[in-house]
Amino acid sequence: MLKIVGIAASAGVAIAKAFRLEHPDYTIHQRDASDSAAELAHLDDALAKSQQELEAIKERTHQELGEKKAEIFESHLLILNDPELLTPVRDKIASDKVTAAFALNETANEFIAMFENMKSAYLKERAADMRDVTKRVLTHLLGLTYVNPADISEEVIVIAEDLTPSDTAQLNRNYVKGFTTNIGGRTSHSAIMARSLEIPAVVGTKEVLDKVNGGDLVIVDGLDGNVIINPTEDVLNEYKAKRDRHLEQIEEWKKLRGVQTTSKDGVHVELAANIGTPNDVVGVMENGGEGVGLYRTEFLYMGRTELPSEDVQFNAYKTVLEKMEGKPVVVRTLDIGGDKELPYLNLPKEMNPFLGFRAIRLCLEQKDLFRTQLRALLRASVYGTLRIMFPMIATLDEFRSAKALLLEEKEKLKAEGVQVSDEIQLGIMVEIPSTAVLADQFAKEVDFFSIGTNDLIQYTMAADRMNERVSYLYQPYNPAILRLVKMVIDAAHKEGKWAGMCGEMAGDATAIPLLLGLGLDEFSMSATSILPARSQISKLSKVEMEQLAAKALQMQTAAQVVELVRAIGE
Amino acid sequence: MLKIVGIAASAGVAIAKAFRLEHPDYTIHQRDASDSAAELAHLDDALAKSQQELEAIKERTHQELGEKKAEIFESHLLILNDPELLTPVRDKIASDKVTAAFALNETANEFIAMFENMKSAYLKERAADMRDVTKRVLTHLLGLTYVNPADISEEVIVIAEDLTPSDTAQLNRNYVKGFTTNIGGRTSHSAIMARSLEIPAVVGTKEVLDKVNGGDLVIVDGLDGNVIINPTEDVLNEYKAKRDRHLEQIEEWKKLRGVQTTSKDGVHVELAANIGTPNDVVGVMENGGEGVGLYRTEFLYMGRTELPSEDVQFNAYKTVLEKMEGKPVVVRTLDIGGDKELPYLNLPKEMNPFLGFRAIRLCLEQKDLFRTQLRALLRASVYGTLRIMFPMIATLDEFRSAKALLLEEKEKLKAEGVQVSDEIQLGIMVEIPSTAVLADQFAKEVDFFSIGTNDLIQYTMAADRMNERVSYLYQPYNPAILRLVKMVIDAAHKEGKWAGMCGEMAGDATAIPLLLGLGLDEFSMSATSILPARSQISKLSKVEMEQLAAKALQMQTAAQVVELVRAIGE
Repeated sequence: MLKIVGIAASAGVAIAKAFRLEHPDYTIHQRDASDSAAELAHLDDALAKSQQELEAIKERTHQELGEKKAEIFESHLLILNDPELLTPVRDKIASDKVTAAFALNETANEFIAMFENMKSAYLKERAADMRDVTKRVLTHLLGLTYVNPADISEEVIVIAEDLTPSDTAQLNRNYVKGFTTNIGGRTSHSAIMARSLEIPAVVGTKEVLDKVNGGDLVIVDGLDGNVIINPTEDVLNEYKAKRDRHLEQIEEWKKLRGVQTTSKDGVHVELAANIGTPNDVVGVMENGGEGVGLYRTEFLYMGRTELPSEDVQFNAYKTVLEKMEGKPVVVRTLDIGGDKELPYLNLPKEMNPFLGFRAIRLCLEQKDLFRTQLRALLRASVYGTLRIMFPMIATLDEFRSAKALLLEEKEKLKAEGVQVSDEIQLGIMVEIPSTAVLADQFAKEVDFFSIGTNDLIQYTMAADRMNERVSYLYQPYNPAILRLVKMVIDAAHKEGKWAGMCGEMAGDATAIPLLLGLGLDEFSMSATSILPARSQISKLSKVEMEQLAAKALQMQTAAQVVELVRAIGE
Repeated sequence: MLKIVGIAASAGVAIAKAFRLEHPDYTIHQRDASDSAAELAHLDDALAKSQQELEAIKERTHQELGEKKAEIFESHLLILNDPELLTPVRDKIASDKVTAAFALNETANEFIAMFENMKSAYLKERAADMRDVTKRVLTHLLGLTYVNPADISEEVIVIAEDLTPSDTAQLNRNYVKGFTTNIGGRTSHSAIMARSLEIPAVVGTKEVLDKVNGGDLVIVDGLDGNVIINPTEDVLNEYKAKRDRHLEQIEEWKKLRGVQTTSKDGVHVELAANIGTPNDVVGVMENGGEGVGLYRTEFLYMGRTELPSEDVQFNAYKTVLEKMEGKPVVVRTLDIGGDKELPYLNLPKEMNPFLGFRAIRLCLEQKDLFRTQLRALLRASVYGTLRIMFPMIATLDEFRSAKALLLEEKEKLKAEGVQVSDEIQLGIMVEIPSTAVLADQFAKEVDFFSIGTNDLIQYTMAADRMNERVSYLYQPYNPAILRLVKMVIDAAHKEGKWAGMCGEMAGDATAIPLLLGLGLDEFSMSATSILPARSQISKLSKVEMEQLAAKALQMQTAAQVVELVRAIGE
C-alpha cells in the first residue's frame, strides 16, 4: 500500500483499477531498411489495424455520444486512406530504402508543417488530425502501446501526467470513475472539468504516474487530496465508508435545494453558479442555484472554424435566460486570449499571454466581433433577467468604450424595431489589481462588480497560476488579496451597488466565512458547490464573520489567515 | 520631408544620414545545382570575402575596444576555416548536386542543432557563433546586403525594427549619433541602453523603417519623440538650434553637480543613480549622484559560461563601494528570469516568464548560487555604505527566508574572522502589487523600500510592458499606481523607514512633481537624468506638490493626472 498526497480538486471518493494514460515515445531510432517489401507489408498491416480501431471507436462514439461527435473519426479514416499521403510514403520506402515508420513520419511531418503554415483555420485543424492519425499508425509500426482515452471501456481511475482539454473531452463518464495527475492545481483546466463532470479528482501529486502500475487498485479521495495505491483490506473498507458518508451528505444537501441562502443571524446572500454552456443550466437548477453568476461565453467560440453568428449566439443566450426562469444571469462577454486560443482569429504568439492582448482588449479592437455578441445579448435580454459583464477591465476608459458600443447597438436595434430590455445591469469583472485599487471610481459608473479571483490572485502575486514552480505564490488567503476584495466590496456598497465573486475562491469552504464577513453579496461557484456552501453559511453568524475578517486583514501571511479561519471550526 | 512621432526614449537631438540596420531574408529558394564545380568556386569566393570582412572588423575592434572584445571575431575566423564544417559542405555540393547555399545552410544547421542540445553552455554559445558566421557567408552566397552594426564607420542614425542586446553591444558610439526603431517603449532594452550611452533615441515609431531610405538625412529628436526625414532647410536649422539649446541646457545643469537636491521650500530628497557595472560609477559621479539607488547585478552573471565566483563578485561590489566614496549603494541581488535569461542555468521555458520563476523565487530555491552572492556582498560591506535589496518579493515569508540566509552567511564569515559591517540596511523592491498592498506589514521588518515601477505597473495593469498591443495600458500615471506608491511611502514613514523608487518613473519629469508630493525620499534614475531632475525639484514647492498629489489620487484616469501635472507648468 502506498499513500500519495496531492491537491483535492473535485469532491468524492472513487475506487477502481488504475488506467495509465500516457503518450509513448515516438522517437524513430531506425532509419535504414534494405528489405523494402517487408517494410511495405509492415505499413499495410499497421494501416489495417488502425482502420479497425478507428471504425470501432467511431461506431461506439456514434452510439454513446451521437453522430456529431463521431465525425472526427470519419475524418481520421479519410486521412488513413488518402493516396496523397500514402503514395509518397510508399515511394520513399522503396527508393530511399528506409523503414515504414521513418517514411511515414517524415512525409506526414511535411504535410503537417504545410497545413500549419496555412492561413485557413480549417487546414490548421487538419494538421492536428493528421498528427493523431500518424501517431496511431506509428504506434503499430513501432510496436508501442497506447490506448486513447476514448477507447476506455471498463471502470477505471485515470492516472496521467496531466489531462489536456482534448483528453478530457474524450473521457467517458460511464467508465472513468475518478482521476489523478502529477501536475495541475485547483484552478487548472482538468480540475475545473472534474468538478463539472462530478468525478472525484486529486491533482498535483507530482509522482502518482511514477508509482502506479496499470491495473493497481487505486482510491482517489477528492475530499482530502489523498491517493491510495493497492490499499489493505482495512483501508479499503475505511474509504468505502468515507465514500458512503459523502454520498449520504450529498443526499442531505439536496434538501436545501429550494431554500434561500441565509446566515445563522438571518442575513441573505445569493449563491449562483458558473456555467459554460446552456446544457449546464440543468445542473444549476438541480443544485438550487439562485442565478447564474458567470456564463462563460468562450465555449460558443471554441471548437469551430469561424466566429459564431449573431443568431447562434442569440439562441444560446435566450435558452439560458429562459431556462433560468427569471433568475439573474450574468453573461461575461468574450474572454479569449491568455490560455484560451481561437485558431481562426490568427492572433500572434505572445511572450506573456496572461499579460497580453485578451478579453476586452481584443474586443475593443476587433469591434465587429464584439458588436455581434452585444447585439445577440441585447436581443436575448427580453427573455429573462440579463446582466452583462466585461472581462479584464483595467481602466475606466475601457469600461466607457465597451459601454458606448453596447448603447450604440441598443439604439440601432430599437431603430430596427427590435425589443430590448431597459433593465440590463452592466458590470465588470474585477480581476486586475488596478481596478480593485480604483474600485471607488469604477463604482460610480458600473452597476455591479464580480471579483474574478483566479486572475486577480495571479496578477496581484505576479505568479502564473498554471506554473508549478511558482504555485506556492497562488495564495487566495494572502491578506493582500483579502484587502483588495474588501476595497471592491466597500466601494460597491458606498455607491449602492452589489459585489459578487465568480472565481474558484467563492466556492471554497475556507474562504466562505471570510467573504461573508467582508460583506460579499453574491457567491458564484461550480453548481455542485452550491448546496454545501448553503449548508455552511446557514451555520455562520455574519456579525461574527465580520470580526473574523477584520482580524484576517491585519495578518501578515496567508498561513496565519488559514489558521484563523480553521480555528472557528474547532 | 516627413515627420514621424514615436516615443522619446533618450534625450537630445541628433542629425545624420540614415543607416538601415536590417536582417535580410535568408530563405534559400534554389536547392538543386548541376554544375558542382561552379558552386564550389562560389563557396570559396564567399568564404574569402567573409574572411576579409572578419579580419578588418577584428582589427578595428581591437584598436577601438580592446583585445578582449576582439576575441569573438577570432572565434568566427576559426569557424570559417573549420574543416569539420567545410568538408561535409563540399561533399554535399558534389554528391547531392545542390547549391553551395543549400549545402552550407543544411550542414551548419545540423551543427547548430547539435550544439544547442548540449548541456555545456560553452557549446551552446558556439551555436550562436556558428549562426553568425553562416549568415555572413550566406549573405555573399545569396547576393544579399547586410552590414553588421560593428561595421559602421561613418556618422549615422541607425534605423531598425528593434535593437537586440547583441546589436547594441556592437554599436560604435563614435559613429552612431542616434537611433530610432519601429517597436519598443521607454523601458525597452534599447531605450535604457540609449540613455546609458547618452545617444538620442526615438522608439516605438511603428513605421520609421518603412519610410526611410539608407542615406536619407534624418533628425532624431529624443526630447519630444519626433523623427524627421529629409527636412527642409528651415526645419533643419530649427532642429540644429534645438540641439544647441539642449547642449547649453546640459552645461547649465552641470553647475548643479555638487549641490544637494532641495525643493523650493527647502525639503531635501536624495537623487541616486541606477547602474549595471562598476564602470557606470564614473557617470554617477560626473552627474552629481548622491548615491546608487539600484545596482543591477545581473550583468555580472551575463555573457559568461558559468556562474561568477565569489571573488569576481566581491571585487565588483568592492569597486563600486569604494568609488562611491561612502555614499550609499543599494545592491539588488540577482534578478534573473523573465526577459533576462542565463543559458548556463538551463531554466525550463515558461508560458508567462514575467509571472514565472525568477529573481528571489529562483534564489530561494538555488540557495548555493544565492549564498555566494550574499557572501561576496557581506565581504564587500566594509568598503563603503552597502544596502542590500531583494527583488520580486511577494510575501513576508520570502523576505524572512532571504534575510535568514544572509544572517547565516554573516555568522559564518564572522566565525571565519572576516570583517563584515553591522550597518547594512536590508530592503526590498516593491514591484508586486501584493507587497504594495501589504506594505504596512512589510515596513515592520524591512529597513527600506524601493519601488520598482517598471514591473509594478505591468503587474498592476496586467499588461506585458514589452508587448506593443497592450502598450496603452502601461500607465505610470494611472491613479491606481499612484495610490499603491502612496501606500508604500506612508507605510515606510509610519515605521520610520525610507522609501525610494528605482523604476523609470523616478526620472520622469511628469512624475517628479507627484512623487515629491507623495513624500518619496529617494529617486533613483539614469545618471544622465539626475541634473535635470535636481534642477526641476529646486523649482517645486513640496507643500504645493502634496496638494497636487492629493488631487491626483482622486482622479479617474491617467490622462486626467497628466493634465493636472501639466497645468502646474503653465
